[in-house]
Amino acid sequence: MPITRYSVWGVPGLPEIAAGDDLVAMIVEAIDAQAAEDADCALKDGDILIVTSKIVSKAEGMQVPVADREKAIAEDTVRVVAERVHPGGVTQIVETRHGLIMAAAGIDTSNVPDGVALRLPLDPDKSARDLCAGLRDRLGFNVGLVITDTMGRPWRVGQTDVAIGAAGIVVTDDLRGGVDANGRPLQVTITVLADELSGAADLVKGKASGIPVAIVRGLGRLVTDLNAPGARTLVRSVDDDMFRFGSAEAYRLGYDAALAELREASGQPETRLKQRQD
Amino acid sequence: MPITRYSVWGVPGLPEIAAGDDLVAMIVEAIDAQAAEDADCALKDGDILIVTSKIVSKAEGMQVPVADREKAIAEDTVRVVAERVHPGGVTQIVETRHGLIMAAAGIDTSNVPDGVALRLPLDPDKSARDLCAGLRDRLGFNVGLVITDTMGRPWRVGQTDVAIGAAGIVVTDDLRGGVDANGRPLQVTITVLADELSGAADLVKGKASGIPVAIVRGLGRLVTDLNAPGARTLVRSVDDDMFRFGSAEAYRLGYDAALAELREASGQPETRLKQRQD
Repeated sequence: MPITRYSVWGVPGLPEIAAGDDLVAMIVEAIDAQAAEDADCALKDGDILIVTSKIVSKAEGMQVPVADREKAIAEDTVRVVAERVHPGGVTQIVETRHGLIMAAAGIDTSNVPDGVALRLPLDPDKSARDLCAGLRDRLGFNVGLVITDTMGRPWRVGQTDVAIGAAGIVVTDDLRGGVDANGRPLQVTITVLADELSGAADLVKGKASGIPVAIVRGLGRLVTDLNAPGARTLVRSVDDDMFRFGSAEAYRLGYDAALAELREASGQPETRLKQRQD
Repeated sequence: MPITRYSVWGVPGLPEIAAGDDLVAMIVEAIDAQAAEDADCALKDGDILIVTSKIVSKAEGMQVPVADREKAIAEDTVRVVAERVHPGGVTQIVETRHGLIMAAAGIDTSNVPDGVALRLPLDPDKSARDLCAGLRDRLGFNVGLVITDTMGRPWRVGQTDVAIGAAGIVVTDDLRGGVDANGRPLQVTITVLADELSGAADLVKGKASGIPVAIVRGLGRLVTDLNAPGARTLVRSVDDDMFRFGSAEAYRLGYDAALAELREASGQPETRLKQRQD
């Protein structure tokens, strides 16, 4: 029985990236330098590159002065999902323009130069397609590419990397309608390969090590058309999202709705409601 | 610069597991059979075994007749987090006895014999410790072990594997107080290694392939004392959980609370509240 075996390693040696830098060239150079010392590290057909969003944002000029951080968060926020007051201020969990649910709209100041805050790429799937296309052109064979960012999650401590952009790979393994090894219908239906790849790469990239790119080799079966569905398809639709608001926020919405209904029923003017409808 | 490189592969050939089976012996046998064909597959010091909870449950006798599925769900449920009515019935997302938030308390009927539903292990960290200790004894060197299950997540489509039990590995990389490559404080604080390992292993195990064990080699730096904190420490504390209830459920709680308060204030007897307080 042929087994699937894959390997993962990090690509060190990328310089600090600045707006306008040619990321394809810089990634290929870093990989070439690594391959000069270890020939196994030269890219091959079917490899998948896992790229931290930070260097993509930097190359795309998404830097803002730290003083404009709040403004940038507001610009990238579609809606506030939850917020919590703590001694250091208020943490807002928001839905970003990308459909991602993240603290501070994913804008952060670690691993960036002093005085700078960094927004996420405006369209990470497009960024991934551009990078992947550039790499394929230059290499002459097919690779896949995932752009990752770090996310907290409800219910479980800590953070893990997930895919916010993807190109040239199959992002999910859709098993709906499939059967298990015994021929019985599978209850688990969609395996999110792109997120699993992102987490796998984080194990060699880490947060403190300055390694923004990892290579996954041995999962070439996941490498596909450049225009296959991207990471945006991993965002759960509103109708399907049972956790659209924080519990405290949803509780307050319910509380306020009951008060508004009762005031309406009792003939009292409901000023706030009317203002909202204007 | 020395790079971290690791590899992941699946272990095929495990038979259907029954209650009381010696899982340590069966896993070692399957690995030995694989190593007879490919010597690289023989276990080494520092390897990490990623084991699907299903075979652990089966060995521990957690099978129940399908007819008792609802009763088993109720037994393993601490509280209902959210529920949704759909054409096929009601899906309940619950908190399990393990602190996990899962549909149907993690009880499922795929990859199990006909007529059987399978509960999660009662104490997956203990299961992991027992298995890991058994493997270390038998092998004469140190390995780590993670027990995984498949979970949906809010906000993002699909499912991924996470760690529900762990032994002999460092489950998180706690970077609180650490600095980035530029010496600036890290905003991301706790990387959840055990979940990243679980997802990485799922890429070779899959759901339809009947491969319940994967080996991760090259991350021996994560292998540690048998009694290091387990996967239970990955459960977010109640105080820290902003998504303790589904949005619809929290909305209803708020709505009902407002009605109750108003009735109380208006001097009307609030029967339901009084019943609750009794």
